[in-house]
Amino acid sequence: MRISELSRRSGVPVATIKYYRREGLLPEGRALNPTAVEYGEEHIQRLRLIRSLIQLGGLSVARTREVLDAVDRPLDAFETLGVVHHALPVPSAGKNAKGAKDDAGPDIAVDEAMSDEGASARVDALINSMGWQISDESPHRPALAESLSALGHLGAGYTADDLIPYARLATSTADLDFAQLDGIEDRIALAERAVVLTVLFEPVVRLLRRLAQEDANHRRHHRRTCSQGERPAG
Amino acid sequence: MRISELSRRSGVPVATIKYYRREGLLPEGRALNPTAVEYGEEHIQRLRLIRSLIQLGGLSVARTREVLDAVDRPLDAFETLGVVHHALPVPSAGKNAKGAKDDAGPDIAVDEAMSDEGASARVDALINSMGWQISDESPHRPALAESLSALGHLGAGYTADDLIPYARLATSTADLDFAQLDGIEDRIALAERAVVLTVLFEPVVRLLRRLAQEDANHRRHHRRTCSQGERPAG
Repeated sequence: MRISELSRRSGVPVATIKYYRREGLLPEGRALNPTAVEYGEEHIQRLRLIRSLIQLGGLSVARTREVLDAVDRPLDAFETLGVVHHALPVPSAGKNAKGAKDDAGPDIAVDEAMSDEGASARVDALINSMGWQISDESPHRPALAESLSALGHLGAGYTADDLIPYARLATSTADLDFAQLDGIEDRIALAERAVVLTVLFEPVVRLLRRLAQEDANHRRHHRRTCSQGERPAG
Repeated sequence: MRISELSRRSGVPVATIKYYRREGLLPEGRALNPTAVEYGEEHIQRLRLIRSLIQLGGLSVARTREVLDAVDRPLDAFETLGVVHHALPVPSAGKNAKGAKDDAGPDIAVDEAMSDEGASARVDALINSMGWQISDESPHRPALAESLSALGHLGAGYTADDLIPYARLATSTADLDFAQLDGIEDRIALAERAVVLTVLFEPVVRLLRRLAQEDANHRRHHRRTCSQGERPAG
């Protein structure tokens, strides 16, 4: 197919396709003659992956190129997932604060809340307790330490043991996640699905927690109201 | 105490305290004489809440004022939590994309992925199936519909039934969250903890999922490798 059809079928504008090609993200098509290039189904699939990484994953073009290079290497599914997983943006509390920056007045130093030794040790202890296999290079180790450290500075300290019930639920969630990948053998399709699952499905998981919190607030309120034959002291 | 001590004890710079006071977020102290104002412990507590809302919650000053007004009204804990919960920024997939905007080249329309009728109906069906009590005004209803709609446009459609296992785990997570609020009777302390729990603890929950995913990838790989007496076909 020509670039116009590639654009139509992929939903990516021609200018964007050319940009991705210039940046080395999209392989060249087959030259039919000096002015016409033929693209195949593999270009549509590749464009979907690029689009997922950049638009949903929030990856830079350079980072996207790294992930695509990894996908192109003859890795097995396990390794491909590992590369994609570590390349995606890492959740952090700091991100939320950015939006309000312009409006928040003079700056306050929250950088005090940087990761400390104690927090890293707690992350290691948690991973050991859970028997999780996590690489030393995982970006999620220091990110978790940083979050725990920030919580500690706000008077909300958590030990490794405090987090185990949450970690158990996370294991169950991850098992549901991987059930969604079962049966996908093609590496590019697998990488694409992993991006979608991690980046676009993550808000779903967070929103379900928010909804469940609202319901838990109702249930707690109801329990309190109904057990008040006499009004509680205080 | 004077403003300098208030600044020292709260960790908030004097200029920021004055800014919050001008914006009506922090009540005036007691005037000792035309040039000296006395602040109390309640100002420290209030500053901590303001700081949580703006810096961690990412709320604008206007939104922060609304939340503080609600906290000041004689609401019970249930209502206070409801107000805070709905005021906090709502998770969405779009946020991730923002970071890469400058670098992503020509724009692609993802607004096609706006919430459709089908997605809202699925959210309602899920809430009904779970027996969750969720107000019609909850910002998390349309946000979830939008996420599901975006996933659908990427070929990852989810029915209400598909989401039930995730919703069950979310209920368990929310129960753990509320166990953390047990015993906090003071309304301002409760509001502050709710902000911390929702905003700063949320990355912890997300990071635990990422770590558990890495472990699940290992477990899946190990299972596959070990059951390969003969190599699988294909």
